[in-house]
Amino acid sequence: MAVIKTLPGFNDFFPEDLRVRTYLFDTWRNVAHRYGFVEYEAPMLESTDLYRKKSGNEIVSQLFNFTDQGGRDLALRPELTPSLARMAAARQRDYRKPMKWFEIGQCFRSEKPQKGRWREFIQFNCDIIGTDSPAADAELIALNVDLMRDLGFTAEDVKLRLSNRKAWDLFLSSREIPADKTGEFLSALDKLERDREGTAKKLEALGIDVADVEGFIADPSQAAEIFDPITNDLEARGMMDFIEIDLSIVRGLAYYTGTVFELFDRAGKMRAVAGGGRYDELLALVSDGACDLPAVGFAMGNAVILDLIRETAEPLAQMETWLAAQSAADVFVVIADESQRAAAVQSVQQLRAAGIKVDYPLAPLKFGKQFQAADAVGAKLTVIIGSEFPELGVKNIATREETKATADELVPVVRELLATEPATPQLA
Amino acid sequence: MAVIKTLPGFNDFFPEDLRVRTYLFDTWRNVAHRYGFVEYEAPMLESTDLYRKKSGNEIVSQLFNFTDQGGRDLALRPELTPSLARMAAARQRDYRKPMKWFEIGQCFRSEKPQKGRWREFIQFNCDIIGTDSPAADAELIALNVDLMRDLGFTAEDVKLRLSNRKAWDLFLSSREIPADKTGEFLSALDKLERDREGTAKKLEALGIDVADVEGFIADPSQAAEIFDPITNDLEARGMMDFIEIDLSIVRGLAYYTGTVFELFDRAGKMRAVAGGGRYDELLALVSDGACDLPAVGFAMGNAVILDLIRETAEPLAQMETWLAAQSAADVFVVIADESQRAAAVQSVQQLRAAGIKVDYPLAPLKFGKQFQAADAVGAKLTVIIGSEFPELGVKNIATREETKATADELVPVVRELLATEPATPQLA
Repeated sequence: MAVIKTLPGFNDFFPEDLRVRTYLFDTWRNVAHRYGFVEYEAPMLESTDLYRKKSGNEIVSQLFNFTDQGGRDLALRPELTPSLARMAAARQRDYRKPMKWFEIGQCFRSEKPQKGRWREFIQFNCDIIGTDSPAADAELIALNVDLMRDLGFTAEDVKLRLSNRKAWDLFLSSREIPADKTGEFLSALDKLERDREGTAKKLEALGIDVADVEGFIADPSQAAEIFDPITNDLEARGMMDFIEIDLSIVRGLAYYTGTVFELFDRAGKMRAVAGGGRYDELLALVSDGACDLPAVGFAMGNAVILDLIRETAEPLAQMETWLAAQSAADVFVVIADESQRAAAVQSVQQLRAAGIKVDYPLAPLKFGKQFQAADAVGAKLTVIIGSEFPELGVKNIATREETKATADELVPVVRELLATEPATPQLA
Repeated sequence: MAVIKTLPGFNDFFPEDLRVRTYLFDTWRNVAHRYGFVEYEAPMLESTDLYRKKSGNEIVSQLFNFTDQGGRDLALRPELTPSLARMAAARQRDYRKPMKWFEIGQCFRSEKPQKGRWREFIQFNCDIIGTDSPAADAELIALNVDLMRDLGFTAEDVKLRLSNRKAWDLFLSSREIPADKTGEFLSALDKLERDREGTAKKLEALGIDVADVEGFIADPSQAAEIFDPITNDLEARGMMDFIEIDLSIVRGLAYYTGTVFELFDRAGKMRAVAGGGRYDELLALVSDGACDLPAVGFAMGNAVILDLIRETAEPLAQMETWLAAQSAADVFVVIADESQRAAAVQSVQQLRAAGIKVDYPLAPLKFGKQFQAADAVGAKLTVIIGSEFPELGVKNIATREETKATADELVPVVRELLATEPATPQLA
């Protein structure tokens, strides 16, 4: 049998990788909870129709889809918003509005693996359903800013580029361009930054001069009444140093109706860290008109943000400090005399019953090797069980200080010695 | 467009369902950490070959598999052990032995949805790689017992049925049955409990009398030297009231080589809650001989354990107490005067920056309705912002006591009032 490997674009999370993922998940959950969001999850598989009708062509061409044994056309989810819309439409009557929901989970896109793009990746999704108030748009943008600050970024590292499709509706109607050309216009505009010449040609075909478009982008004050409610709110939160109004941001997805935004590194070296916007018509579309609720949301993947953390000094140092503080076990029970294994196992059980993380040798191991094992798991204390049991020793690995105790005193003694260690963040 | 529904056998996790899942995940992670295990994760998709060669026919017939755009035959993982074996075989040199690894994630099987069986389900996997010591088998069994105790179960509710394929090797060789019949024998034995007559016929074809088999099951003392090292260890941990030696347990999977066990409700009303065993040859098989390490592991799904919690009084009461203590926000900021919205948003920001979970109305809302919203999110305090700002009121929702404060004093006042609330478990 040939050796089977991880599929291209898919990732194994070895324990050291999973620890990094936990750092990200904890930070995501923490900011979502502070903002009053509650967590949900959707299936990894959905009917392919859910994406065909609304995600836009680029995503549909990247679907992992197949026909199951029952003849259904299924797809691995490429994003969460369609599932959320399906769930919200089915059960919205059961929830007070606005619904503030977040999700963390895998998504799948069959595209060429490259920096910042995997075929299996993890998204953090936050959505507010049931209000068209710009305060909801501001709440989500603020959550992005606070998340970046929690990770150690400042306004010098990242910026949030804020736009609104309604500003372009104003632009097009004042130029007497028919509304049914909006989609074509936005998808041309989406490429302006990467390909000015090609975009200019496409705009010309629509009867629009690229210079006119660039003039509008250069002076967003013409769309002030659209942006003021959001920027005034963000101003009150003291966050405007992170925000840049940038009408060139339109986002590829078909379902956005108003505010759209993308979070970028200031150096402009990477893809967007996060992106989102308002999608006031999607729930009605997915529910065949049964549920007509406005909504706004964003998603952040795990790939670009981790690249950005690794390339930015302060966020990297903060993450490494957190990682270094994680241990597989806080106490390692050393069996100095193999005939005392039952006593050692008893002591291990006592400590674990008290909620303490404990490891010990599962097979006979030389005395010195056991201390190496204790070090390797990150233990702060060793408990040494030998022929004097129920008398035993508790040793602080850092200070090498040893405390004598009896088996009965073990739990309180270990608790006291662990409490005097510098406080460290714990795995969730 | 027709309304699109959740696929049969797949689950939406609405916030109230996700909270239950979090309770289970927290309990799983907590016991794994206490036992010194570190977390890993594997991709959701693998080469179908990984399962074809080792999972056993039943699982392979239930694969969700398909050919991707690059012509690869892929499968959604039906279990974790093959992925773990692949990962461990690829990188085992980088890790100290024994490796104590755990995982929590989705698995997929295309079988008929029924009680305790979903097409998408979540598994908790714990494995110890790199030692053939029976202490490792005992460590995993103890983890199961402690997990059930953490969930509120006692030895009166559940039992762990412990068996060993080596005991059957002894039985077969003493009856002079050739070793190449072992697989056929075990798969017949696996059905004994459900279909005595059919099993008797299959055994007869192998030249074995069903009564002889039942006699061996009735007197496991014949295999004492196999079980003693494990049961002595579990005795030292005070866990033998949970354990029953039961040679009729063989488990369906092809790769087990020694210890096998299954955890059941005592009433015998449900499928196995968890199951596992020793698989000393799988890593060599998956790595084409490059990595030959012994291993032992088990998996617990989320379906049966949740059914069992819901049908057992004490575990259910414990879970409900935990669920009731969860809140979407601890503080709700009430905007008594809409012209003070910017001040309210500022106060919200102040409190969140102090790590407090805060919600507030995203659109103008009547005064009374805001208190209903505060109740609905589970807030303990309201902060009332009106025309007197920066003077404001902080109200304890339970006692209706109101404390006056200024905006500058807001964070310390709220912190003090929250600290005097009864301590509640927090979401991870």
